[in-house]
Amino acid sequence: MGNLLQENDVFKETFSFSQAQVNQFAEVSGDKNPIHWDEAYAATTMFKKPIIHGFLGGSVFSKVLGTQFPGEGTIYMKQEMKFMKPMYVGTEYEAIITAKAVDSIKHRATLQTQVVEKTTGAVVIEGEANVMNLTKI
Amino acid sequence: MGNLLQENDVFKETFSFSQAQVNQFAEVSGDKNPIHWDEAYAATTMFKKPIIHGFLGGSVFSKVLGTQFPGEGTIYMKQEMKFMKPMYVGTEYEAIITAKAVDSIKHRATLQTQVVEKTTGAVVIEGEANVMNLTKI
Repeated sequence: MGNLLQENDVFKETFSFSQAQVNQFAEVSGDKNPIHWDEAYAATTMFKKPIIHGFLGGSVFSKVLGTQFPGEGTIYMKQEMKFMKPMYVGTEYEAIITAKAVDSIKHRATLQTQVVEKTTGAVVIEGEANVMNLTKI
Repeated sequence: MGNLLQENDVFKETFSFSQAQVNQFAEVSGDKNPIHWDEAYAATTMFKKPIIHGFLGGSVFSKVLGTQFPGEGTIYMKQEMKFMKPMYVGTEYEAIITAKAVDSIKHRATLQTQVVEKTTGAVVIEGEANVMNLTKI
């Protein structure tokens, strides 16, 4: 049972998104806000260049929790995200997921979910998730 | 200035997702958990059939806030989502976004963000968002 999630376990995942992926997310979600794809429009804003949708940046939590940590069988119960800084196309980020509280009886865990800029360590998304997993928690 | 967001303003949007859209989200997010696309696997779970990613279901909030209510220029500051019930492919849902608190000085608002099953009214996602919009709040 050594592979059950334990308090203070940490999982890290480096990732980045291309403009093509941002455009694909705009298509599938219907969020075609020009701040995410129109360079000329973005240049007129405080961000200066297109930014990644917060929901696309945050989807790394869904990927990690559902496929790796704790992995298959995860049921997503809650996700909170604070978007602290804009995320940009082509920039390397790291998701840092930390098990803060684990209830092995109810098979539930509360995890801190962060995205940081890989090079600076600056937090761009700060959040918390609650999940259930009958075989891995 | 009558088009500024006001407390208690409500916006409703009917939507549904196809399996092709779910597959596209799995691709762009990297969340290839089989519960979202593998019918045989899903049949062995409590859900019985493939369910939509919570982040895809919740992306309707990003779409509405960023493109319609309050719309262009919205800066997403926070999103909380509780996944109350599974969401299924081809089912009609309604997003209901309600302005709960509006600060016209700081141009910020707190909104209740819900997704309900269109036919039954059952809440499938319950949440809250904080946004800023310099021209529409």
